[in-house]
Amino acid sequence: MQKGRFIVVEGLEGAGKTSAIQTVQHWLEQHQIDFISTREPGGTPLAEQIRTLVKQVQDEQVAPETELLLMYAARMQLVKSRIEPALAQGQWVLGDRHDLSSRAYQGGGRQLSESLINQIRTAVLGSLRPDLTLYLDIDPAIGLARARARGELDRIEQEQLAFFQRTRAKYQQIANEETGIVQLDASQPMAAVQQHIVGALDQWFAGLQE
Amino acid sequence: MQKGRFIVVEGLEGAGKTSAIQTVQHWLEQHQIDFISTREPGGTPLAEQIRTLVKQVQDEQVAPETELLLMYAARMQLVKSRIEPALAQGQWVLGDRHDLSSRAYQGGGRQLSESLINQIRTAVLGSLRPDLTLYLDIDPAIGLARARARGELDRIEQEQLAFFQRTRAKYQQIANEETGIVQLDASQPMAAVQQHIVGALDQWFAGLQE
Repeated sequence: MQKGRFIVVEGLEGAGKTSAIQTVQHWLEQHQIDFISTREPGGTPLAEQIRTLVKQVQDEQVAPETELLLMYAARMQLVKSRIEPALAQGQWVLGDRHDLSSRAYQGGGRQLSESLINQIRTAVLGSLRPDLTLYLDIDPAIGLARARARGELDRIEQEQLAFFQRTRAKYQQIANEETGIVQLDASQPMAAVQQHIVGALDQWFAGLQE
Repeated sequence: MQKGRFIVVEGLEGAGKTSAIQTVQHWLEQHQIDFISTREPGGTPLAEQIRTLVKQVQDEQVAPETELLLMYAARMQLVKSRIEPALAQGQWVLGDRHDLSSRAYQGGGRQLSESLINQIRTAVLGSLRPDLTLYLDIDPAIGLARARARGELDRIEQEQLAFFQRTRAKYQQIANEETGIVQLDASQPMAAVQQHIVGALDQWFAGLQE
C-alpha cells in the first residue's frame, strides 16, 4: 500500500488557517483522498490536556524550554497515536500546525536557540517531515487584530507584537531556505488566498504523479 | 558567594526514599546548611500539573517518548524556576528524584534508547549535575510490596515486575559506571540504611572541605 501524504497549514494567529484548512479539505474530497485532520498542540485526549496546560498557565512564568518540551510532548503523542498509523495505512493527514510552529514560535518568538530546537526535533521526530506545508504569511498587526476580534486570547496570543514579529521573521526565513514550504500572501482577500492554495495543491500533486 | 550543592535521592517505589530524605534533611539542619527541598516530577504549580497528567492518563496509551518529554518539561520548569536560582544564591537543593529517574525508568523500564535520552538531557540540562546522588537499591519485588501496602498505585507504578527489574538494572549500571552516585542497600533495616546515608554524607562533605 502506498504511504499517505502529510499536508500542514501554518501561520500566525489571524492568518486565516481555518479557512485554508477548509479549502484543503474540499480539495482532498474532490480528489477522493481518504484523510484525517489533526491540530497541534492537541489531537489526542492527552495532547489536548497538554494544549490546555501550556496555553492557560497563570501566576507562573513558563520557562521557554518547558514550553518547547510540552509542545514536543503533545506532538509526539499525536505522531505516535494518529499521524504515523494513518500514513502507514495510506491515509493522508491534514495538520493544523506541526513542527514548523515550534521552530517559529519557540525559536523566533521565544528566541530559543536553533541548536536546542533541532536537537530535540531530530531526537523525537526522526525523519518524519510534512510532504507539503502551506505557510500563510501575514503582518502580525493585521493577524492579531483579526484574532482579537474573535474573542479572548490565550497566554501565548497575549504576547507583545515584537514576539509575533520575531515569529513571522522565523517563519519567512525557514520558508525561504527549505523546500516543501509554499508561502502564501494571507493579506489578500479570502477568495484569492483560496485560489492560490488550490493552485499550490494542484501543482504539487501533478509533481507527485510524474 | 559560594554556589549551593545539589543532593538527590533516587530509587524504585518502596525503596525508602521518604525516610532517606528525612535523614538528609536532618543532616543538613545539623550542619546549619540553608536548603530547599524539591520533588520530581513536580515542585512548581505547572510541574505538579504535568506530574498529575503523566501519572493519571487513562484510556490512552502514552507513547514512551511523550512520557520522556513530559518528564523533562516538568524538570526544566523546576530547574529554571527553583533549582538554578537556589544554587546561584548559595542555597543547597535536596531533590526527591532528578534526571537519573528518567534515565532509569524511561531508558531502562520503557527501553527508550540511551542516545535519545542523552540528546534531550544534554540539550535541556546543559552542565547541571547533582553533586551527590544517594541511590537506594532494592529488589522491586520487595519495593513494590511496600509501595502497594501504602495504597493505590499510579499509572507508572502499575507496570509489571519486569518493567521495574529493567529500571533497577539501569539504575545499577549507571551507579556503577558514573561518579557522584552512592549505591546503598535499601533491603537492610531502616536504622542501618540511615547510618549508611549519614556515613556517605560525612565522607563526601569531608572531601569538599579538603
